[in-house]
Amino acid sequence: MTKIKQLTNNLSEKMIQVAIVSDPVSINYLTGFYSDPHERLMFLFLFADKKPLLFLPQLDAKRAEDVLDFPVVGYVDSEQPWQKMKAILPKTDYRQIAVEFENLNITKLRGFETVFTGEFVDLTPTINQMRLIKSADEIEKMFVAGDYADKAVQIGFDNISLDTTEADIISQIEFGMKKQGIQKMSFDTLVLTGNNAANPHGIPGTNKIENDSLLLFDLGVEALGYTSDMTRTVAVGKPDQFKKDIYELCREAQQAAIDFIKPGVTASQVDAAARDIIEKAGYGEYFNHRLGHGIGMSVHEFPSIMAGNDMTIVEGMCFSVEPGIYIPGKVGVRIEDCGHVTKNGFELFTKTPKELLYY
Amino acid sequence: MTKIKQLTNNLSEKMIQVAIVSDPVSINYLTGFYSDPHERLMFLFLFADKKPLLFLPQLDAKRAEDVLDFPVVGYVDSEQPWQKMKAILPKTDYRQIAVEFENLNITKLRGFETVFTGEFVDLTPTINQMRLIKSADEIEKMFVAGDYADKAVQIGFDNISLDTTEADIISQIEFGMKKQGIQKMSFDTLVLTGNNAANPHGIPGTNKIENDSLLLFDLGVEALGYTSDMTRTVAVGKPDQFKKDIYELCREAQQAAIDFIKPGVTASQVDAAARDIIEKAGYGEYFNHRLGHGIGMSVHEFPSIMAGNDMTIVEGMCFSVEPGIYIPGKVGVRIEDCGHVTKNGFELFTKTPKELLYY
Repeated sequence: MTKIKQLTNNLSEKMIQVAIVSDPVSINYLTGFYSDPHERLMFLFLFADKKPLLFLPQLDAKRAEDVLDFPVVGYVDSEQPWQKMKAILPKTDYRQIAVEFENLNITKLRGFETVFTGEFVDLTPTINQMRLIKSADEIEKMFVAGDYADKAVQIGFDNISLDTTEADIISQIEFGMKKQGIQKMSFDTLVLTGNNAANPHGIPGTNKIENDSLLLFDLGVEALGYTSDMTRTVAVGKPDQFKKDIYELCREAQQAAIDFIKPGVTASQVDAAARDIIEKAGYGEYFNHRLGHGIGMSVHEFPSIMAGNDMTIVEGMCFSVEPGIYIPGKVGVRIEDCGHVTKNGFELFTKTPKELLYY
Repeated sequence: MTKIKQLTNNLSEKMIQVAIVSDPVSINYLTGFYSDPHERLMFLFLFADKKPLLFLPQLDAKRAEDVLDFPVVGYVDSEQPWQKMKAILPKTDYRQIAVEFENLNITKLRGFETVFTGEFVDLTPTINQMRLIKSADEIEKMFVAGDYADKAVQIGFDNISLDTTEADIISQIEFGMKKQGIQKMSFDTLVLTGNNAANPHGIPGTNKIENDSLLLFDLGVEALGYTSDMTRTVAVGKPDQFKKDIYELCREAQQAAIDFIKPGVTASQVDAAARDIIEKAGYGEYFNHRLGHGIGMSVHEFPSIMAGNDMTIVEGMCFSVEPGIYIPGKVGVRIEDCGHVTKNGFELFTKTPKELLYY
């Protein structure tokens, strides 16, 4: 069954006859066609009783037609898209219209209110639920994206030098990946030296790589429409014992969570498996973010691995495990891998070693 | 007068006592603080009668406090942000609450509905109106971003070879810019060869650079918080006379629009100044997008330079002029510069020559 069929069946059970998908990533997930329409409008209409319809800027219509086996309607900049939409849709007096509440802005909602007469209900949870559990095919793509992340971080390691800067290393990593045909990193690559790494949201710049210090890499690569995300912290020169101890504590916490994950446990329990270790060592206040986030076509999706989330972990979920300890002015460490939940455990997409590496 | 003061004065005139800014670029524009909170919540509260308040993830609170001279409230992942917001706000029973309709999604609107009791009105037009007219200081930054774009496209030209691919040249350009300390391109760089350039939304890949053909570069660089955007099309080898004629037609159309721009004309007249020339030559159907878009902190903002937009052009507006002619299977040309409207004309931010260059 296609993903579109799965979605419309699900909606039919709730007696919803039409759904409008607006998030370009959701459209890609459902159809295999991706386009970023920027400020222009692009919507995928799904109907319980007929073929889907993609409404998008005329500029992209040809490319969409080549990929899709259902009708595509383009509009040009000089047309009024809401009026055109109303004119081409066979029916607009649905009782309920499902739209992505997490994606649709109020301006577009007001636009739809000029086209449809029914009640707007939230489609986001339904699509999130579908995307939450990855198929074998999707997991294969996650491994490919993870493999590229391993390659990317290795390029970073190979370029560590006291004569270089955070920005330099980033440019070497991204250059190396583009050379391998990668079009896009999953997010802005982070390389953070010394005290900059002690800020959980530090921003890389022209800081020279510090000696006798820790150096943090956080990066991901987009491949086959799927993303990766990994963090490694390595030693440059001879960091003092305190820094090394904090590193080992973070590593122990990450491993504890990885070992704990299996179907049946909850997201908050996974978070606690790592957090308890850091708290018991007295550094709980310096681990000031959730343990992890879901990952797939987007670098941040469900499930959120954090206190308060009682969602049960099931086979096929993919998420990050990334404890961090950030002691301002002293040391910053984060170690992160993403993986997928197997029948009885958790398998990582990234394989770069985690014993403290020295450069 | 600060931009925040300007905005709250404007709202006070409309008897609106509170505004909530959610777009990170708008927050940066108003305060000088930038953060991308991803799926977390970040809002700037502006009040008619007291200091602003920034509500954001605790992770970024320290960095915000360092930059801002008003209160910052952070929340951690385990807190319920809407409840916390309600608890810390001094008053929530406003008659009207201005929010950015173009930015705020329905989920967040529903969140605000649990905090506030009044009517939500649109803040987007007010902020767009402010951003529409750039100050001298902003225009200076646009020139810096434009200068980097000139440098970037030159790196592209320097790397043209029949042994290389579109993706290779892109990686050389972005590598070169990162080396100069640039953190971000304004958008994914395009290098399109031959028939790929004949698609107005072509996607670069591992295509080898074609001989006796045209090669299109579309790129921009982010500098000092402002963006640039330029397109150049150059000759590789000896393109035939038809391709050269189409190039010259596009160039003539662009120049006609640039010469036409001055305060008092309308956006649709500017579009027509270029379009008429292409239409009269018989290629109107192949120029299937608007002539240009506003530019500033975002690469696409107002004004939209297109048929049907009767907005009057005034001094300080910044936008692109980018006619294109795309004849599928035959030739694709686009030439684009951004500039600012002066007292009596239009000055370009980019200076790369436009006579057809041969490589």
